[in-house]
Amino acid sequence: MSKVKCQISVSADGFLAGPNQSEEHGLGEGGDALHEWAFKTRFFQEMHGREGGEGGVSDDLVREASANSNAVVMGRNMFGPVRGPWTEPLWNGWWGDEPPFRVPVFVLTHHEREPLTLGETTFHFVPDGIESAVAQAREAAGNGHVHIGGGGETIQETIRAGLLDEIVINQVPVFLGDGVRLFDGMPSSVKVEQTRVVQGDGVAHLFYSLSY
Amino acid sequence: MSKVKCQISVSADGFLAGPNQSEEHGLGEGGDALHEWAFKTRFFQEMHGREGGEGGVSDDLVREASANSNAVVMGRNMFGPVRGPWTEPLWNGWWGDEPPFRVPVFVLTHHEREPLTLGETTFHFVPDGIESAVAQAREAAGNGHVHIGGGGETIQETIRAGLLDEIVINQVPVFLGDGVRLFDGMPSSVKVEQTRVVQGDGVAHLFYSLSY
Repeated sequence: MSKVKCQISVSADGFLAGPNQSEEHGLGEGGDALHEWAFKTRFFQEMHGREGGEGGVSDDLVREASANSNAVVMGRNMFGPVRGPWTEPLWNGWWGDEPPFRVPVFVLTHHEREPLTLGETTFHFVPDGIESAVAQAREAAGNGHVHIGGGGETIQETIRAGLLDEIVINQVPVFLGDGVRLFDGMPSSVKVEQTRVVQGDGVAHLFYSLSY
Repeated sequence: MSKVKCQISVSADGFLAGPNQSEEHGLGEGGDALHEWAFKTRFFQEMHGREGGEGGVSDDLVREASANSNAVVMGRNMFGPVRGPWTEPLWNGWWGDEPPFRVPVFVLTHHEREPLTLGETTFHFVPDGIESAVAQAREAAGNGHVHIGGGGETIQETIRAGLLDEIVINQVPVFLGDGVRLFDGMPSSVKVEQTRVVQGDGVAHLFYSLSY
């Protein structure tokens, strides 16, 4: 069955990005430490068209968690740090000429913009909210899954709208102290079930399934 | 070697107590859900002088994590909800006539008070801060360990003072939405090492060792 899924790296103190995000520090100060375990996996290197990386339990898990993700939803901040109306010259985001998604990506924004194709990825800009973005992504994903890319606000909105089915939290042993919280003001009515817990190398993989 | 340790139950969104703590809801609204897994263990039932409870991985782990804890440090809020100067009649805390600690307990407070013995537990009231409380607890613990009981502020103060060696986070699949955060404003300079991750029944046990 087609599901709405998320997998996200988070610090031991609950932040998915550090303080003072900027073009230079897209993940905020200290935020890169959250992804070191992922960079080491063979899956991540393949996604970015490179050789190398290691197999092992974390590689298996990210591969499994990403399988059949046929569409992505992300917040505008995850597309790029530009705010307000889109202005010429249009900035094409963090992801370079060959974004690693290779599936339709739906970007939440308050400002309309024509779709943008870079390499094998097309970004669609959705001005009318998370329900609409997830509905469009479901349509695009067909029998595959929809992956919520982030950031924190987008994940929280998806849960508040009762739309997220599964989340894998990759909890990394580091304190960021401040920044963007993964969970803030979550509704306590959501039923959270722990389905699996796996020890990786320098990361804990916590699998939760949500119902509403 | 004698260590300063902590083990604490926390929600998936990082709260160790829910909102609106009161005498009736010592753990705040929804907070009792954090301890359901622990109540089921044989170790917890033994601690409270009762029969029953279940063995298994979580029972083994809490038993191991609590072994040789020969002194406890806690914040005043964990002793009882009374604030300000101690007034007659002196309230003797949450823990009843037979507190389950049975080792010296050092309670952080801004207001001096004579030691209080209830059953096999003596509470000492420490007006001069976390360093002093931990030093006194170390002295009392001899070759055993010091256990930081909580709450959040006390755990955070212990880490900020560079005094906490190990923490076991028992992460429970529930959202509390609001309340007392386990980690808030932690120094990013602390080195956190993940030493073990274990899947319990309705709980994930995350073992971290800290260095400064």
